[in-house]
Formats: sequence, structure tokens, C-alpha cells
Amino acid sequence: MHTVVPLHQRLLRLLRDLGPLSRAELADTLEVPRPRLLAELERLVATGLVTEAGLAASRGGRRSTLVELHPDLRFAGVDLGASSIDVEVTNGRLEPVAAYTEVADIRQGPKVILNRVAELLAKARVDGAFDRLAGVGIGVPGPVSFRDGVPVSPPIMPGWDRFPVRDFLSREYGCPAVVDNDVNIMAIGERHGGVAHSVNDYLFVKIGTGIGCGIYLTGDVYRGTDGCAGDIGHIMVDSHGPVCSCGNVGCLEAVFSGVALAREATAVARAGNSSILAEKLAEAGFLTARDVALGAAEGDISCIKLIRDGGRQIGIVLAGLVSFANPTMIVIGGGLSQLGHILLAEIRSVVYRRSLPLATGNLPVVLSELGPRAGVTGAAVLASDVAFEEAS
Amino acid sequence: MHTVVPLHQRLLRLLRDLGPLSRAELADTLEVPRPRLLAELERLVATGLVTEAGLAASRGGRRSTLVELHPDLRFAGVDLGASSIDVEVTNGRLEPVAAYTEVADIRQGPKVILNRVAELLAKARVDGAFDRLAGVGIGVPGPVSFRDGVPVSPPIMPGWDRFPVRDFLSREYGCPAVVDNDVNIMAIGERHGGVAHSVNDYLFVKIGTGIGCGIYLTGDVYRGTDGCAGDIGHIMVDSHGPVCSCGNVGCLEAVFSGVALAREATAVARAGNSSILAEKLAEAGFLTARDVALGAAEGDISCIKLIRDGGRQIGIVLAGLVSFANPTMIVIGGGLSQLGHILLAEIRSVVYRRSLPLATGNLPVVLSELGPRAGVTGAAVLASDVAFEEAS
Repeated sequence: MHTVVPLHQRLLRLLRDLGPLSRAELADTLEVPRPRLLAELERLVATGLVTEAGLAASRGGRRSTLVELHPDLRFAGVDLGASSIDVEVTNGRLEPVAAYTEVADIRQGPKVILNRVAELLAKARVDGAFDRLAGVGIGVPGPVSFRDGVPVSPPIMPGWDRFPVRDFLSREYGCPAVVDNDVNIMAIGERHGGVAHSVNDYLFVKIGTGIGCGIYLTGDVYRGTDGCAGDIGHIMVDSHGPVCSCGNVGCLEAVFSGVALAREATAVARAGNSSILAEKLAEAGFLTARDVALGAAEGDISCIKLIRDGGRQIGIVLAGLVSFANPTMIVIGGGLSQLGHILLAEIRSVVYRRSLPLATGNLPVVLSELGPRAGVTGAAVLASDVAFEEAS
Repeated sequence: MHTVVPLHQRLLRLLRDLGPLSRAELADTLEVPRPRLLAELERLVATGLVTEAGLAASRGGRRSTLVELHPDLRFAGVDLGASSIDVEVTNGRLEPVAAYTEVADIRQGPKVILNRVAELLAKARVDGAFDRLAGVGIGVPGPVSFRDGVPVSPPIMPGWDRFPVRDFLSREYGCPAVVDNDVNIMAIGERHGGVAHSVNDYLFVKIGTGIGCGIYLTGDVYRGTDGCAGDIGHIMVDSHGPVCSCGNVGCLEAVFSGVALAREATAVARAGNSSILAEKLAEAGFLTARDVALGAAEGDISCIKLIRDGGRQIGIVLAGLVSFANPTMIVIGGGLSQLGHILLAEIRSVVYRRSLPLATGNLPVVLSELGPRAGVTGAAVLASDVAFEEAS
């Protein structure tokens, strides 16, 4: 059932993840006969992906020569949010060489937004971050057909439905490109360089404008039959709850998300139940999740209660997912993870109380380590994967 | 990440699933050089697992000899329920050779129950169903450590916690044995010989005394980090619902299951809202899910409403799982699937209304085809897998 990963891909990924290695170490780790490894290396040096990197430390006997990914190798990771563009250019080891972020409204459509991305990358090139790119990865805030490289009926992205994002980028930059859902790239990033390093079964829960879940199962991102696995924002948590933008009642997103929290905070301020929120509302004319976080940090009881109530709703959904999927770890990321410890404590409390003890006995529920960088990091991982795949 | 399945296992599984094949067909399907295939076949003939089976139909040129699994090869599949033992002895192609079923209370503990299994298998041997077994598979109604072959803190199986079921069976029958959760073996059975044939991503939902879910992802049973994935009976569906045996409020099992349905039916009968149920209650002194099914078949409105209400609760949980896992198919099995079309129609209606259109556009929600045989079939599949694995 499982496809076997070809030798050249496994080799390139090792050099990406571990850095310079000797031929002996490579042959041992990849478990291939030395002549086959040497032939493969020679081929990859010819393509310009791999290069010699001096002598290894002695293991006794003749010192082996190190090989590494070419120092000029560059990937681009792009993370499109509802109202932001993040771009990172990395070297072959996926270390950032340049990073840019700017405000942009995804509803302006693919032409405008992808032009802004092109301008940022042009700037990176002028700044000396790269000469040419070996791969581009991009995440978008909506469902994606990973196979076709296009968004599919994305609710908050008018004009993007079935737009050939992958082929557009591939033509634009003359290299392989790959498109995925924004939550999947965050999950991939966090597993590559964050708190979920090398964990095979884990959930990355993004709580922001919307709510979504990236799923790792047996070491791979799980995308589901139609590529829309992880759409947990519309799971029902309260049959008596508010009507959601999707038309159903009591969806998680309608009860707790950036939008829902701002709405609740405004109601609390207007009812005179929080002086901090009332002041902010009078000042700015509107409230955001950030105001609630700041209020809670100052000890405002209503703000703390708003976060706790939200954490309980998230916890109920996650308890169900823990019962179903029995993951090794849950990572909480996205804008609302700034609500921090109060949110996390409430989520943990509900999950530990509601799921099978066997499943929660050793289940860390933790905040994302990469934070806002999780997305671009994951996009760069995908960019390198697809570049390595096509280097055959 | 994925382990490569060795040649001999793939070869034996092909003969199990497809029947007699020519050497040419085997070499083509397995994509191995002919000399390697012939050497492997010779070895498997020597072990007694494989044998010659006459000449294949001509493909032009010299007619090839067929090989098949040895006609005397036998596996045993055992399905332990809360109150039943099902045993099936199969040939190498997993076709039933003998089948037995009897009433037994799992709470009598492993010694008593496994002795009953031994008596049934002794009877099968006397009846000529087998001379010796090549593998035994068993499913139990509780969480299992698949790796260790033991039940782990099973709530309805006192005395079974960490009892070495696998090693006990292996010693008793002198062959490899394997233990899994009852819902997993039903999922495996339905995929081998039922409606989910060759579907890679699907959920098998068992609705009976309890409620559980077998999960197939990318072609393999998914068991989770601690082997308790699929424990969906304790997902919360109604925050104002009844208290569950687990201590939490509003669990799916507390709201709809064999026990819950009997309780609700009794309340309906006592309130004078169903003459059919009232009569049955007066006659037998108690009501079961079957009485509700019979009442609904005769058009009793209260019975139909009980089933619809239950279907709605199951539907809410499954809608959440569809949003999360985006499966290709959902199969409903277990004792309460006898509630049939009314139940299914309600489940479908909720799932199609509540999940993302992309995920439900082409999502069959269907009844198990194997019904009560799903479990023993899956146990026999596992028995053959482990027998083939150890034939190296």
C-alpha cells in the first residue's frame, strides 16, 4: 500500500535534516551498498544539488569526505493568511536567509495576492537572498486539492476556487511548486523544527480567525479522501449555540474564534462587566482577541472567564478527537494561542477529564514553539520535498 | 517511515485474496525477477503453505502451472462479545469451513471464556474442520495493546486486564496468535470480504451494547498511540444529557446504545405512549433494542421516534468525524444496525447537513454487509497475516 521513497529523495532529506555527512555515515543510515550510494551521489553532484564539504572527523583509518547540500540551494515558503502574507527564503537546511511579512486581504484574489508575493520575492533577490529558487511551497487559508495544486471552494477566498496556484508559481519561478492548506503547513513546520519534532501521530490545532487541524498519522500528513481532513471548525459543540456563517447551529468556530471572541468581548464591555474592555472599546471603537488577552494578563475577571469558556469549548472538541485518534501530542497554534496559559489550562482540564485515561495518561497538550513561523517553515519543507522528488 | 512488506508475505496474501495463480501472474503482480520468485515459491512449498494446483489457462505458448495455498491450511477467527462467543474455522482463502456461536458472559474471566473457546475448537476438530491450525485471531470487547497481545483496563471485562491472551492461545494451539479490539476486527473483516472491499480510508461504526469505531487510513488499521483509537462511545453529544457509566455527562453511549435504548423504550411504555411496547413490557418484564426495531417495523410512531432520535445523536458525532477525517465510506454494524433503514436515513441526513459539502459529496453511509460475521472474518484475516509473517 505504501509507496517506497526512492534513494535520492531519502539521501537529500538526510542532508537537509542532519547537515553535512560522510559517505560512510550515509551508506550506514540509508542501508544501501556503497557502490550504489557513490553512483547516486555522483549524479546529484552533477545536478548541482549536492557538493563536497571537506573532511569528516576521523573514525579510525582514512578520513572520509563530507558531502552536503549545495550552499547556494534556496527554497521559498509562503504562508497566506486571511489578512497577511508571510514569505521566507531558506537555504538547503531550511534555515531562514530572508523573511518578509505584510498585511494583505486574501479577498483581493489570486492575481493581486500572488503579485504581492512576487514583489516580496523580487525584493529578496535584490537583497541577495537567492539567485534562483529550487522549489516554492505555499499555504492558503482554505481547502486544497493537494494533487491538483488548486484551492477548492474556499469559503473566505473569493476568486481563488480552482485557480491553478501551483502551476502559476512553477511557471513564474521556473522550479517545482506545491500548494497546501495553511493548517497542514503549520503542522509540517512544527514537526520539522518545533515542539513536535519527529512525533509521528499528532494534531496541530490552529485557533485564529477560523479553527482548523493539521493531522499527522504514522509519520505523514493525513489529508483525507478529498483533501479536507482537519476541518474541525464546524464540529458542533453546543446544540443551543449561535448560528455559524456556514448556516448550522453551535459550530466550534461560531462559539470560539477570533471573530466570536471579539463579539463576546464587545457584549461584556457594553454590559458594563469589564472596565478594561469598556475603556478599550471607547478608545478604539472595536475590540479584538488581543484586547481580551491583555485584559486577562492584567487580571480582569471577565476577560479570564471569556478565555476559559472558549478553552472549554475547544477542549470538548479535542477530547472527542483524542478519543477517536489517540494521538501522541496536541500542539495549539494560530493567533489565539496568544491567550496562552489560561486557554491551555482549560483545554487540558477538559481533555484529561473527558477522554479515556489510557489515551491521556501521557498526552502533552502544548503551545506551538515556532508560533507565526510554523507556516512558512512547513511551506519550505514541502518546497524541498517536491524539489528533491523531481531531482530524479 | 513505512515498513516494506517482505516478498513471502505479499505472495501468500495474493494467493489468499485471489486464489490459484500462475507463476507468470505472480511475477507480474509482485514485480520481482522470476528467479527470485521461483526460489521463494520453492521455499514456501517446502514449508507446506503453498502447493501446485494444475495447469493455468493458456496465455499463448507453454501453459504455466498454477500455485495455491495448501488445501489443508486452516485459520481460526474468534469474536468475543459482551455476552457471546463466535468461532469460525476457515481455509487458506478465508472461506468458512465450520462456524459456532454460543452465549457466554465475558465477565466470567479469561480462564472460563478461553476454555469455552477451546471446547468449540475441539468440537470443530472432531467434526473434521481441521487437523492443525496455522494461526488464531481473536477480538475482545475492550482496549487492547496490539503489540503486547493483552487487553488493557477493559471496562466491561473484569479479570482480563493484561491477561496474556495472545501467548495463551499461541501455546494452546501451537501456532502464531493475534489479539485485537472487537471493532477493529469487524473493520478488517468488512474490508476483506464486505461492502468496504479494498477501500483505503473508511470508518466502521459498531452500534451495540457499546459504541466504537474501527479506523482504516491509507490502507491500514489505525490503532493510535496507545491502541485505543476509535473509542467514540464517550464523545459528548449533549451537555445536558444523562450521566454515563464513565462518570461524564452526555456521552454518545449514554444517549444511544443497546442499554440506553432499552431504558428509553421502558420509559415510553410506562408513560403509555406506545401500546406495542407496553404489551411487550407486560409480557416479558423488560424491553430490548429488538423490541423497538419490531415496533418500528409495525409502524409504531414512538418506536420510530426513538430510533430517529438515536440516529440524530450518532449523526452528530459522525459529522464531526467526517469533518476531521474526511473518509471515503462509513459502514454501520453491530447489533443495533438491525434498526435498519430508519436509523441509517437519520444518520445520513445529519452527516450530509452538518459536514463540509466537499467531504460528503460522494460519501456512502451504508450498513455492514457481513453483519454478525464481520468480526470472525476479520479475526481470521489477522490470523492469516500473522501466520504469513512468521513463515519467513
